[in-house]
Amino acid sequence: MDPMSKRTFLAAGLAAGVAALPLRAGAADPNRKLGYAILGLGYYATRIIMPRFAECEQSRLVALVSGTPEKLKTFGEQYGIPESHRYSYETFDRIADNPDVDIVYIITPNSLHRTFTERAAKAGKHVMCEKPMAATAADCQAMIAACKAAGRKLMIGYRSRFQAHNIEAIKLVRDGALGPVRTIVADHGFTIGDPKQWRLNKALAGGGSLMDIGIYSLNATRYLTGEEPVAVNAMESTDRSDPRFKEVEDIISFQLLFPSGATANCYSAYSANFNRYRVTGPKGFVEIDPATSYQGQSMRTQLGGPPTPREPAPTKTNQFSAQLDHLSECILTGREPIVSGEEGLKDLRIIEAIYRSAREGRTVKL
Amino acid sequence: MDPMSKRTFLAAGLAAGVAALPLRAGAADPNRKLGYAILGLGYYATRIIMPRFAECEQSRLVALVSGTPEKLKTFGEQYGIPESHRYSYETFDRIADNPDVDIVYIITPNSLHRTFTERAAKAGKHVMCEKPMAATAADCQAMIAACKAAGRKLMIGYRSRFQAHNIEAIKLVRDGALGPVRTIVADHGFTIGDPKQWRLNKALAGGGSLMDIGIYSLNATRYLTGEEPVAVNAMESTDRSDPRFKEVEDIISFQLLFPSGATANCYSAYSANFNRYRVTGPKGFVEIDPATSYQGQSMRTQLGGPPTPREPAPTKTNQFSAQLDHLSECILTGREPIVSGEEGLKDLRIIEAIYRSAREGRTVKL
Repeated sequence: MDPMSKRTFLAAGLAAGVAALPLRAGAADPNRKLGYAILGLGYYATRIIMPRFAECEQSRLVALVSGTPEKLKTFGEQYGIPESHRYSYETFDRIADNPDVDIVYIITPNSLHRTFTERAAKAGKHVMCEKPMAATAADCQAMIAACKAAGRKLMIGYRSRFQAHNIEAIKLVRDGALGPVRTIVADHGFTIGDPKQWRLNKALAGGGSLMDIGIYSLNATRYLTGEEPVAVNAMESTDRSDPRFKEVEDIISFQLLFPSGATANCYSAYSANFNRYRVTGPKGFVEIDPATSYQGQSMRTQLGGPPTPREPAPTKTNQFSAQLDHLSECILTGREPIVSGEEGLKDLRIIEAIYRSAREGRTVKL
Repeated sequence: MDPMSKRTFLAAGLAAGVAALPLRAGAADPNRKLGYAILGLGYYATRIIMPRFAECEQSRLVALVSGTPEKLKTFGEQYGIPESHRYSYETFDRIADNPDVDIVYIITPNSLHRTFTERAAKAGKHVMCEKPMAATAADCQAMIAACKAAGRKLMIGYRSRFQAHNIEAIKLVRDGALGPVRTIVADHGFTIGDPKQWRLNKALAGGGSLMDIGIYSLNATRYLTGEEPVAVNAMESTDRSDPRFKEVEDIISFQLLFPSGATANCYSAYSANFNRYRVTGPKGFVEIDPATSYQGQSMRTQLGGPPTPREPAPTKTNQFSAQLDHLSECILTGREPIVSGEEGLKDLRIIEAIYRSAREGRTVKL
C-alpha cells in the first residue's frame, strides 16, 4: 500500500469518525523511505543519480528498468537490487505488483518520456521524469492527464531548483536586491561529440541543443523572475553539412520579454561551451558561472561595490538527493512538487514558440 | 598649407618630372603634429579627450569650439589656446582661415554631427566625429559625401579599436584561437540619471541607449568577426512612465546572424550596468569585462584549460591618444582610417534595422 492510499484511507477513516491514531502513526512514519525504480540506465542515471540515494533521507533505490540485461546485472549487483526488482521494458508493467516501488524515475531519450510516464502511472506509480519533460507540449499534456487520472504525482527533474547557488540567486532576485529585473543573460551549451548519439536523432530527442541544454537557460529565466514570458524572438545557426547536425539544430539564440518588463537574452549551443547566467537590475547583478552544472557552481554579486564572490546559504544536501527527496516528501505530505508536470509543459510550450520564431522570422506572442 | 595639399602638390611635381627631394622631406616631416580643434566642450571632450593630447606623437590641440564663452575661456587658458583660436558656433566657419587647424573633432549631441561635419569639410578641415556617427544613416551618407567632395578625411571615434585588450581579442579571434566563432555575447549599459540630459532627448540623440552605449555591443560584434550581419532580431523594453524614457528607449536587445554562421546576442540598456563581451568557438572563449570602458579592461580566455586571466600585448599608448594620432597619420600618409565614415554608416544602418525589427516584430534582413 503506498502512502497516497494510506492517506486516502486515513481521510476516509477520519471522515467516518473512526479513531485514527494508529493509522496516523503509520501514514506519517518518518523513517519510511519511498522506493524509486530508475528507468533507463545511461550515464546520468548510473553515474550521477544512483550514487546520490546514499544521502537521501526519504528516498531509496529499490528497482531498475533497462533494455540491456548486462546493465541490470551490473548495477543490480552493485546496488543490491534483487532480480525480482529488475525489469526489462517488456516486463516493466509488472512493476504494478511491486509494493516496494513508489516512484519511477524516467531517464530515457526525450521522446520516450511520454509512453513510460503513461505506463508508470497506469501501474499506480508516481513519476519523476527528466527534462525536457517530453518532445512536444502535446506529449506533456498527455503525461499530466495520465498521472492525474491515476491519482499519482508527476515531477520533472529540474535539479537546479534544489541547488544552493540557484536558490540563493532566486532569493536575491525575489527579495529585490537588484531592484526590478531588467536583463538576464543565460548561456548554456557544450561541444557535442559522437554524431550517432540519441541527442542528435530528431525522433529520439525531439530537437537539438534547445531540448537538451538550452532548456537550462530558459528554465532559469523563469525561476529567476517568477514570471512567464509573453513574447519570444529566436534565431538559429546550424551547419547542416556537419554530420552531427543533419537532423537537429546546433545554435539557437532566443530573447524573452516578461510582463514586468524584464528581458532575457539566451543561448543554446552544441558547438560552444558555456553554462552561466547573470541577472541585472538597476541596483546590481547576480551571476553564477558555472550555473547549472553537476557541481562547481561559482557566484558573484555586484551590489553597490565592485563584483564580489558570494557563498550561498548552505542547503541540507546536494541538488540530486534533494530533488529525489522532494518528490518523496510531496507524496508523503500531499503537496505538489515545485517542479510539477505543469512546469515542464510551460517550458515545452515556450520551446515550441522559440522554434516557431526562428523558423518564421517573427516575434511569437505567448 | 595642410599635408594633404602638400601631397597633392608633391604628386603633381613628380608627375611633371620635377626633382622632388626637398618637397618630399617637407611632406613627410616626422616632427609635424597635426592640429586639432575640439568642437563641443562637454565632459568627454574636456575630461577624457583633451588631456590625452599630452601623449600624442602626431597630434596637438590648437583650437576650441563651443557655444559657451566661459568654457572657451576656462579651457582656452588651461590648454594655452589663444583667443584667435577659440570659436563660437557662429564664428566656427572662420576656422577655414586658420592654417594651424588640420582636423575638427566633433563631440556634440548626435543629431548635430552632420551639420558640423559639413561645415568643417567646407572649411577644408578633416573630421573626427564621435560615435554614433549621426542620428540617421541618411545623415551619415551626407557626411561621407561632404568630406569626399572637400577631399578631406572622415574618421569616427571608435576608440576601442585602439585599446590593447580589444586589439588582442580581435587578433585571437582572427587567428582562429577559438575555432570558428559561434557565439558572441555583448552587453553594454549604464543606469542613466538626469531626465533632462540631451541623451534622453530624441531630437538631439536620435534614439536611446542603442545610440549611445549599445552601439559598443554592435560595433564589437563587427570588429571581432570582421563580418557584416545579414539578419537582425530585436526586442525593446522601456517603461514609458519613467520620466527618463518619455522619448527614447531604455533596453533594446538584439540578435545578429553573420554569413559564417557566427551569431551575437547583445544588450543595450539605460537601466542596467554592464560593459562586457565574450566570444566563443568550439576551442574556447575570450572575454573582456569591462570591455570598452575608458580604463580598467580585464581579459580572460579559456583555451583548453580553465578560464585564465590574460594580459594583452602592450600598445604604444592609451586608446585616446592612439585614436587621435591614427587620423593624423592617415592624413600624413594618405591612408583611410580603419574606422572611416563608411564604418560609422554601417553601424547606423544596422541600428535602423534593429529599431525596425523591434517595432515590427520580425527578423530584418540586411
